Amino acid sequence: MIDTYRADRHVFQPWGAQDGGARLEITDGAGCWFSDAGGTRYLDLASQLVYLNLGHRHPALIDAVHTQADRLCVVAPTFFNEVRDELAAALLDISGTGAGRVLFTNGGTEAVEHAVRMARGHTGRAKILAHYRSYHGATAAAISISGDPRRWPNEPGVPGVVHFSGPYTYRSDFDATDDATECERALRHLERTIEFEGPHTVAAVILESVVGTNGILVPPDGYLAGVRRLCDRHGIVLICDEVMSGFGRVGEWFAYQRWNVRPDLVTFAKGVTSGYVPLGGVIVAEHIVESFSATPFPGGSTYSGHPLACAVGVASVAQIAAGDLLTRARTLGATALAPGLRALQQRHPSIGDVRGAGLFWALELVTDRDTKQPLAPLLPGRGGTEAMAAVAQSLREHRVWPMIVANRIHLAPPLIVSDDEVEFALGALDHALDVADSYYRA
Amino acid sequence: MIDTYRADRHVFQPWGAQDGGARLEITDGAGCWFSDAGGTRYLDLASQLVYLNLGHRHPALIDAVHTQADRLCVVAPTFFNEVRDELAAALLDISGTGAGRVLFTNGGTEAVEHAVRMARGHTGRAKILAHYRSYHGATAAAISISGDPRRWPNEPGVPGVVHFSGPYTYRSDFDATDDATECERALRHLERTIEFEGPHTVAAVILESVVGTNGILVPPDGYLAGVRRLCDRHGIVLICDEVMSGFGRVGEWFAYQRWNVRPDLVTFAKGVTSGYVPLGGVIVAEHIVESFSATPFPGGSTYSGHPLACAVGVASVAQIAAGDLLTRARTLGATALAPGLRALQQRHPSIGDVRGAGLFWALELVTDRDTKQPLAPLLPGRGGTEAMAAVAQSLREHRVWPMIVANRIHLAPPLIVSDDEVEFALGALDHALDVADSYYRA
Ligand SMILES: Cc1ncc(COP(=O)(O)O)c(C=O)c1O
Ligand SMILES: Cc1ncc(COP(=O)(O)O)c(C=O)c1O
Repeated sequence: MIDTYRADRHVFQPWGAQDGGARLEITDGAGCWFSDAGGTRYLDLASQLVYLNLGHRHPALIDAVHTQADRLCVVAPTFFNEVRDELAAALLDISGTGAGRVLFTNGGTEAVEHAVRMARGHTGRAKILAHYRSYHGATAAAISISGDPRRWPNEPGVPGVVHFSGPYTYRSDFDATDDATECERALRHLERTIEFEGPHTVAAVILESVVGTNGILVPPDGYLAGVRRLCDRHGIVLICDEVMSGFGRVGEWFAYQRWNVRPDLVTFAKGVTSGYVPLGGVIVAEHIVESFSATPFPGGSTYSGHPLACAVGVASVAQIAAGDLLTRARTLGATALAPGLRALQQRHPSIGDVRGAGLFWALELVTDRDTKQPLAPLLPGRGGTEAMAAVAQSLREHRVWPMIVANRIHLAPPLIVSDDEVEFALGALDHALDVADSYYRA
Repeated sequence: MIDTYRADRHVFQPWGAQDGGARLEITDGAGCWFSDAGGTRYLDLASQLVYLNLGHRHPALIDAVHTQADRLCVVAPTFFNEVRDELAAALLDISGTGAGRVLFTNGGTEAVEHAVRMARGHTGRAKILAHYRSYHGATAAAISISGDPRRWPNEPGVPGVVHFSGPYTYRSDFDATDDATECERALRHLERTIEFEGPHTVAAVILESVVGTNGILVPPDGYLAGVRRLCDRHGIVLICDEVMSGFGRVGEWFAYQRWNVRPDLVTFAKGVTSGYVPLGGVIVAEHIVESFSATPFPGGSTYSGHPLACAVGVASVAQIAAGDLLTRARTLGATALAPGLRALQQRHPSIGDVRGAGLFWALELVTDRDTKQPLAPLLPGRGGTEAMAAVAQSLREHRVWPMIVANRIHLAPPLIVSDDEVEFALGALDHALDVADSYYRA
């Protein structure tokens, strides 16, 4: 078996240098596996970019594409369209928001842009409060809101964005060592931030219900409810960005449901169609819809509510429900990944922290458990290290395709992953962590 | 035949009020026609939102969807993918830029956001110069750049945007009455704007090669070449926004080719797939690519270079070429639409101006040819008038679905429109203009 890498000559690489060298050529996929032109198969622990929730070549999703393509691919947002309405109704249903409406976009960044716009229009206020350690998208407002180094080359950004620290017990910004204290202090920090920014100037708090790319940070119990209370007290809109954490990733339709919190706006993309057709959007609670009942909403786009995308969305929701994949993700997380990863941590000193929920986990690698010295710079995009590159290489040699961010291995396989595939991944990790261990206190 | 209108209960309406009333329900389409649930057929003079260039249910495009769906729907931008590369190569070829690369996005607004980012990164400068009377998209930077009232509720916008007036002989901002003078004065105005903004502070001039939503303003010969010269003199990047004007709309692959001008960056969307699958992007000239050969480009998105979308793009380019649709659009514009619309102008005093190229035309309606008093506020989105609503209603009664913007009827049928369909449209227009005439000097 020969891996087939090809260098781009015609495609401009997003988020990269154009002389970035050759990349693996994917030519086929099935379920949790993809293969290159040479026939080598990889287990996709990254679900591509954490969006292939139902895996490659899922018959029901392909069927939805075929059926809708034969029916009609194109209906502009100007018109009423049945399948668009059907998906909107389904999303309102699973989101637990009941009434309300859904604005459709092409992806996550447009969802965030429009959610922020709604919050501003609804409140008449300008400021957006967002987490450090977050990613919300690439267009001007969304990248400015992101608390991620990808923001830096795009600064100065849009005005009115304020960043604050969220909970992260392993590397606390609040000198806490347990979750309860971290939660309490993070909430007090947000409370003070709101106070000093002026509560009447704050339109929205936006956060990833479970922080994704910036570390798979599951907030301690009580954090999201506490943020909700602060927002309620000051008439601030709560936006939960569920682009990565939604559609079963943590064993709920949306991660906020883990804590029974109700956001005012929910941004989604990725898992809504597993990326079979580009789609994103905003679930809008009824009281926000009302602010735009007579006043036109000043946003939208050409493909908004695309019928082909919506048809795949309807099929995706149905498949996740039919396969009871939310329960499956919760169970597999609790009974296979959590114990499996913790057992690895016993054996491998380089694992500083294991954290996650459902099918969304991170191993944080360190060269010293006492000092927590990371194996690569903590901030994604600050360049990797030889050590992390060697870890990734080992995983690939064992036919597991990892998602490596900073000093972490992220695990986010498709929801349809089997017990055996989880075992396979844990086996490959065991080898790769030997490599990581060789850098421990080295 | 009963028209079927339905009110939204679940879908949040882009660019509108949520109590906007019922909208026509589209259930089927074929070629240049779509039909509602009651079976009523309409000739689509708007190509939905000026993107259905190859018409509804085009067999080759549906075939491309089917074939690629069976092959593979999902390949993240992290990997090399054949069909993505193939489309990029085809776009470089038809754009006349030769070398260079293509960054793929989900639609037009993301294309503009990333083009602007490239210009800033390439030049190290911040300012963007853009036309009044323009639309470039809905996300924060793109809407700030738009010289369209949809910008107003989104202000204050991103910093560093400066608007200037382009040529528009019928309602000159420069007191010109002929195209040559308008062109000369518009260029002098831009030259002075650059001078006073500080040439070394200007990253890019962005313009729609032919202004779309804001009036179908075909620039006089010499304008685009003049802008190119000013940009060259000062090291400013020229971005041609071809989202609406590209892919045959004016009888060229890209409208700038009408004047043999070479932009540094070309933004595209819409016609690239006729909207069968959402797609957009930026064609990047080689010298801009070089600025990001070692420095990472700070932008991108999850679905960038989507294989299903790229497969439809490849088929679209092939179909436009195979059908010689560029020639067809030019010919039909010159031999059917231009004379047909000018004949209507002879008969109907309410037509103040007829302008366009290829299959991209506007009738500007007035209540007085001498004063040029418009039949509705000139700025799109400033609300319609009873008169324009009556004109639109008449067209719909004659089974022609128009694109009405401000005081104008825009004509932008699919490129596959037949001679008979053009005749049909002209006939319906004749009736509708009787309605417009009833408001003339009333
Ligand atoms: C939480 C979150 N929000 C927004 C985005 C942006 O989504 P897109 O890449 O579809 O624009 C991402 C992408 O990774 C994300 O993880
Ligand atoms: C010239 C131009 N640029 C950009 C856009 C934005 O494209 P999209 O709606 O796909 O984001 C449009 C949309 O009409 C357009 O006409």
